[in-house]
Amino acid sequence: MDFQNICAELEKLYEKHRHNLEGNLADYIPELSKVRPDLFSISMYFVDGREFHLGDSTHKFTLQSVSKPFAYGLALNLKGEDYVHSKVGVEPSGEAFNSIIELEKNTHKPFNPMINSGAIAISNMILNESLLKNFFEKLSNSHLSINHDVYNSELTTAHRNRAILNLLRHFEIVDHNMDQGIDLYFKQCSIEVTTKELAIMGAVLANRGIHPITKENLLEKHYSKILSLMFTCGMYDTAGSFAYKVGLPAKSGVSGSILAIKPNEFSICAFSPLINSHGHSIRAMNLIEELSLKLKLSIFS
Amino acid sequence: MDFQNICAELEKLYEKHRHNLEGNLADYIPELSKVRPDLFSISMYFVDGREFHLGDSTHKFTLQSVSKPFAYGLALNLKGEDYVHSKVGVEPSGEAFNSIIELEKNTHKPFNPMINSGAIAISNMILNESLLKNFFEKLSNSHLSINHDVYNSELTTAHRNRAILNLLRHFEIVDHNMDQGIDLYFKQCSIEVTTKELAIMGAVLANRGIHPITKENLLEKHYSKILSLMFTCGMYDTAGSFAYKVGLPAKSGVSGSILAIKPNEFSICAFSPLINSHGHSIRAMNLIEELSLKLKLSIFS
Amino acid sequence: MDFQNICAELEKLYEKHRHNLEGNLADYIPELSKVRPDLFSISMYFVDGREFHLGDSTHKFTLQSVSKPFAYGLALNLKGEDYVHSKVGVEPSGEAFNSIIELEKNTHKPFNPMINSGAIAISNMILNESLLKNFFEKLSNSHLSINHDVYNSELTTAHRNRAILNLLRHFEIVDHNMDQGIDLYFKQCSIEVTTKELAIMGAVLANRGIHPITKENLLEKHYSKILSLMFTCGMYDTAGSFAYKVGLPAKSGVSGSILAIKPNEFSICAFSPLINSHGHSIRAMNLIEELSLKLKLSIFS
Amino acid sequence: MDFQNICAELEKLYEKHRHNLEGNLADYIPELSKVRPDLFSISMYFVDGREFHLGDSTHKFTLQSVSKPFAYGLALNLKGEDYVHSKVGVEPSGEAFNSIIELEKNTHKPFNPMINSGAIAISNMILNESLLKNFFEKLSNSHLSINHDVYNSELTTAHRNRAILNLLRHFEIVDHNMDQGIDLYFKQCSIEVTTKELAIMGAVLANRGIHPITKENLLEKHYSKILSLMFTCGMYDTAGSFAYKVGLPAKSGVSGSILAIKPNEFSICAFSPLINSHGHSIRAMNLIEELSLKLKLSIFS
Repeated sequence: MDFQNICAELEKLYEKHRHNLEGNLADYIPELSKVRPDLFSISMYFVDGREFHLGDSTHKFTLQSVSKPFAYGLALNLKGEDYVHSKVGVEPSGEAFNSIIELEKNTHKPFNPMINSGAIAISNMILNESLLKNFFEKLSNSHLSINHDVYNSELTTAHRNRAILNLLRHFEIVDHNMDQGIDLYFKQCSIEVTTKELAIMGAVLANRGIHPITKENLLEKHYSKILSLMFTCGMYDTAGSFAYKVGLPAKSGVSGSILAIKPNEFSICAFSPLINSHGHSIRAMNLIEELSLKLKLSIFS
Repeated sequence: MDFQNICAELEKLYEKHRHNLEGNLADYIPELSKVRPDLFSISMYFVDGREFHLGDSTHKFTLQSVSKPFAYGLALNLKGEDYVHSKVGVEPSGEAFNSIIELEKNTHKPFNPMINSGAIAISNMILNESLLKNFFEKLSNSHLSINHDVYNSELTTAHRNRAILNLLRHFEIVDHNMDQGIDLYFKQCSIEVTTKELAIMGAVLANRGIHPITKENLLEKHYSKILSLMFTCGMYDTAGSFAYKVGLPAKSGVSGSILAIKPNEFSICAFSPLINSHGHSIRAMNLIEELSLKLKLSIFS
Repeated sequence: MDFQNICAELEKLYEKHRHNLEGNLADYIPELSKVRPDLFSISMYFVDGREFHLGDSTHKFTLQSVSKPFAYGLALNLKGEDYVHSKVGVEPSGEAFNSIIELEKNTHKPFNPMINSGAIAISNMILNESLLKNFFEKLSNSHLSINHDVYNSELTTAHRNRAILNLLRHFEIVDHNMDQGIDLYFKQCSIEVTTKELAIMGAVLANRGIHPITKENLLEKHYSKILSLMFTCGMYDTAGSFAYKVGLPAKSGVSGSILAIKPNEFSICAFSPLINSHGHSIRAMNLIEELSLKLKLSIFS
Repeated sequence: MDFQNICAELEKLYEKHRHNLEGNLADYIPELSKVRPDLFSISMYFVDGREFHLGDSTHKFTLQSVSKPFAYGLALNLKGEDYVHSKVGVEPSGEAFNSIIELEKNTHKPFNPMINSGAIAISNMILNESLLKNFFEKLSNSHLSINHDVYNSELTTAHRNRAILNLLRHFEIVDHNMDQGIDLYFKQCSIEVTTKELAIMGAVLANRGIHPITKENLLEKHYSKILSLMFTCGMYDTAGSFAYKVGLPAKSGVSGSILAIKPNEFSICAFSPLINSHGHSIRAMNLIEELSLKLKLSIFS
């Protein structure tokens, strides 16, 4: 993969989509709808340390669901695969990002750790804010903060997530201090990053779990499982379609970012807060899709 | 990937699972339950032409659902991606192999071409028995026959598949001579192959759509899309779990075969007619899973 | 209940709704959309023989789903309650008139005889056109004909009903000559009546199964069960709402008629071909609802 | 209806079922499983003041879901039909007593006030413990207490009900102090009565909303709507079957009581704590069913 070539292609695509203001700001929590709609940035980070950034790549946004693969990785580190998957499955759910509670019919487990119910179960395995924040800081190799306005907004309005938590408690997927677990989940979603920082986090997954800068082994045992889950379940009810068209493991968040991984090569993170009805950033999605088609980035190409 | 190493590993695993007679013969059509339950074979075919076979690798069995990715490829060749996906989606359905009719809620399309409803829609795009058989013969590089006992058994008992067909007709996914389409579907499922032949068919997918023996370009434009769909949807309601554990695009059929692809390297086909409740051959599944773990075959490893 | 009073009230309501042309002609089969949209009639028949008619009460329309309670009664006469309910349940399904196939999860039986799947199972218990037609003629005390244009229209377009039939065959709810059963179902739906004739059919149910004119015992053993099912399941997914507001056992058909029964007193049949999204005639529904409210006709009043 | 005849019949049925110890004690909250399993009683109360009791008719049990029609009546009195039904529907849900959260697809309203989600919405309209308790005391014409062991048991274990509450809050069916509403719901379920007292409560519904003893008008405007809902929705996912076989409006509770109403004549309340998988008391159900068949009590007979 030629670095110059990719950068040139990205510049073209960035220009092409720059003025597209289709889509809507997320409004399920009030704070998310206060963002400047024209923000747009891209960051790539290669496993060999090269990086490339365009647009508002130092603008801070909250991680939202893009936090899920990393929290899942932390839970795997802490508890091991067997324990984690006794509580959460690995099957695509066909669930929309804003779907009501759906649990596997026979097991009553959440379908996978990439949807809200699974991610809430994962938070209940971690239950330690500084542990989580510290892990995310190691991944991004920078100091991170929680956006307390977003966090408070989540706390007071996220009745659906509380419904999920109570149902998980009912089915004994979650078995202890519930307030602490959901609190951590809201905090995890409210951690702020730039595309630059998120691209570095993604580069750990691209680099087989080893941090490309610090060389610390953060996800070595589990990176391939996380990538597999991102591929089959990372884009909610359009996971199949993204896998089909783009062919890269990815995760999107309603605040407007999409992180995609080209294993052994690079991560790419695009951000633009205007989302479609599936909760995916329209410009981020289009840009990554067109880049993949043009440069044949699919893992199956 | 060291050829000797793989062969040695396969021999060990073959021995290990040889006497495992867990599971049941498929009984949804009478003919399938008449098979010798202890049959067991493995065939690998490498893109460079090397091959390796163990056990009953010249025993003929009917393709059943393993025919789906190839029929899908033929439909793509004939009709193009846009047309095919105007009728059939690309999302995992979470559907069991014996599930009742489920169509996407808004579009009323089958979820994907790897489940029965999608495969029946695909058959209705081909509608030409000799075209289909000829294509499968090119893929396997051998002469193939339809098992007429199995075909007749399907014809007289497959009320669920007829229900699917009528529903597809209702939603205008299928719009013409219905009897011809379902007839072709049953014939496609009843084509007989050995693991040796099926491994060669799979090697076309492993070799970027170019036949490794004849060098004919059979699926070049579409191989990466087919592999992507096999990865996310090939193993029915355990597709996520297979992707997670094994990490290879695969397809299973109720007659007892599983075909998995290591892109750019090889295909592996295992056969044993004793299946689990998800319709997957138990020995074929275990063998491929353990081989992948041992040799780190996952596409994300 | 004062006859004069009811008639006076009906005249007022008929005038009130006469010019309401809200709603749409049924279009799921082409023939149904060719009807004059302004047709509107009401017929009441009392168990003591008095009758009252307004509007186009000699206009012929096809029975469609209003045939279901009577075909169900015939099946009970022929096969007995135990047999019939070994194949079809008695629970409301929450199903819309145009819903896809839904069968009870554990038993795979149709939910009840008032929805299409249940009615098709019932037709497969009768399997004799002259028997059915003869029974309906006895109920209406008149000569009846099948509208062959509607029947043929059903035959060539009703793919959903054929899907249902195949699924019933798959689950062994239906176990023999399938074409004959669905054919009879389409014929039963295509029998033509006037509101006058349909009101007489309903009066048999109001009169405890004894024909009010011929005194023949047509449904004596089963009338109370049929009324109970009409109350809980007769109006598809608005059955609960109709029971709540109107409080009478009733059945509607997409051709535009609604038949309601005041047990031991009278039947009332209203017809107007303009239907709402639930498949109920808007004027027929409004008129019966307002009459019931005004005269406190609810069985619980 | 001959009083002597009914009493004689009841005595026979009571003897017949006396020693039937089929079924299980409810165990979803620990307190309910501590009851003597052989308890069995019947109470009838006629609108003219006659009464009849057999067995442990002075044993106190908690109302559980039998409280729902009465709380619904109070909400109708307080808020009016329009308001109540802007928040809760009137359609049967096909839901089991222990089902997960299901809300109407388009409106996101609970299906009806007889299932948990609807009843919790109703509690949130009342929000006043003394008002509720006072109303239930007027209905039963006696002093009632809350069983605090059961109430506390509900409080600490009812995660599913809390999940429902949060989901109702999400869909804005419930819009204020949530803890107060669920607290009231648990208290309402924990009110203790004897069959004697519950039969009197039921007699208010049988007597058109007028208390047969105090002559107070407690439910006059709404009794017919409550009876209609009990008929279509009172017995959860066997409501259709109970309506079909027994033909009386009824409500059951998992603590073991079933209350059925013969409009204008009497109420009958049976109690036995051994329940079936649908949550209905087996002996209470059998006894009422057989009595209805024998004496043709169905409202449609």
